[in-house]
Amino acid sequence: MRKDLKLRAMMYPMPAVIVSTYNDDGAPDGMTAAWCGICSHKPPCIMIAINSTLKRRTLVNIKQRNAFVVNVSDISHMTETDYLGIDSGYDVDKFDRVHFTALPSAHVNAPIIEQLPFSLECRAVQFTEVGSHTQIIGEIVNISAEDTILNEKGFVDIHKLDPVIYEDVLHDYYRIGEKCGDAFSAGVIYRKASEIKEGEGDLWKR
Amino acid sequence: MRKDLKLRAMMYPMPAVIVSTYNDDGAPDGMTAAWCGICSHKPPCIMIAINSTLKRRTLVNIKQRNAFVVNVSDISHMTETDYLGIDSGYDVDKFDRVHFTALPSAHVNAPIIEQLPFSLECRAVQFTEVGSHTQIIGEIVNISAEDTILNEKGFVDIHKLDPVIYEDVLHDYYRIGEKCGDAFSAGVIYRKASEIKEGEGDLWKR
Repeated sequence: MRKDLKLRAMMYPMPAVIVSTYNDDGAPDGMTAAWCGICSHKPPCIMIAINSTLKRRTLVNIKQRNAFVVNVSDISHMTETDYLGIDSGYDVDKFDRVHFTALPSAHVNAPIIEQLPFSLECRAVQFTEVGSHTQIIGEIVNISAEDTILNEKGFVDIHKLDPVIYEDVLHDYYRIGEKCGDAFSAGVIYRKASEIKEGEGDLWKR
Repeated sequence: MRKDLKLRAMMYPMPAVIVSTYNDDGAPDGMTAAWCGICSHKPPCIMIAINSTLKRRTLVNIKQRNAFVVNVSDISHMTETDYLGIDSGYDVDKFDRVHFTALPSAHVNAPIIEQLPFSLECRAVQFTEVGSHTQIIGEIVNISAEDTILNEKGFVDIHKLDPVIYEDVLHDYYRIGEKCGDAFSAGVIYRKASEIKEGEGDLWKR
């Protein structure tokens, strides 16, 4: 039976990224965020949403330098990720607490978290007020990864990356499980035989 | 060693949802989308991004009725989900092909996919052009779920839901793996003893 649930912001799966910025004194700060998603292919852009009361130092920092880095959290830094979502950069030096160090970006005025293996360097190109949140669109101007998470062809191996999945209702963290299928391929079974072209199903595979 | 990667729209993890709408003749249509994320807490809003060339029937449909439903895909409907990302609603009746049926929403002018166990009924409240894509912000006005995916307290059990995770570089589908930690709790170890209040770490748990 289908039931209506209590209204709230829900999605499955949700990421857990750390948005890193510079404070006005140049010190690095980071904030855990689950509300984000890709929003353009060309140029590649990502959306992040931050509570707009300006109690979030990260939002102030992004507005000052028009830059931020989205660092994907991995399971081996789950406790650090959680802490960066608990305390405020106004009260403590969060980087220092979790022993994160900052790598300067050569492309934007924001720090990369050295300990996290995958990051998107973003230039803030648009701010939109949406209800309680400010939605920031960042153009991704550089992507970097530790070579330890790449496969033999140089692509990110999702299991080597081991990204944190956040569950926002019961407040749990999960990891990625097993592969279940090939995209742009598994669904070809719903085409009629006459519609399937030679090699189709493998078209999008590398 | 950290390496720069080829620039593209990348994020981990990415969802695989089906955005369902009505065509102008009232028939239901659905499109698989990975580019979406929550963008406001109050009111709850979700962002989806769709290629803005208007080759996407879903975008035309949303603009006509200012409504759409975000249906979270589950692993048991992975092949259907994949198909709805391969063919166009202009060429085939995709609902018919995958044997999906439409439930009318009592709240918005868009159909719920009966076979998928979790859905967000949305009123389109904002359209923004971002590079190659139109970003649509939907206010979530109703949430429904099959009772088979709820736990004993009535909350969604993520393993019962079993949502599809999409990987957009190598084009694979994954499922959720095991739980790794408690959010708003695991990170309390980085607080000093004097900063931890009684019961903290359980504050956000239900």
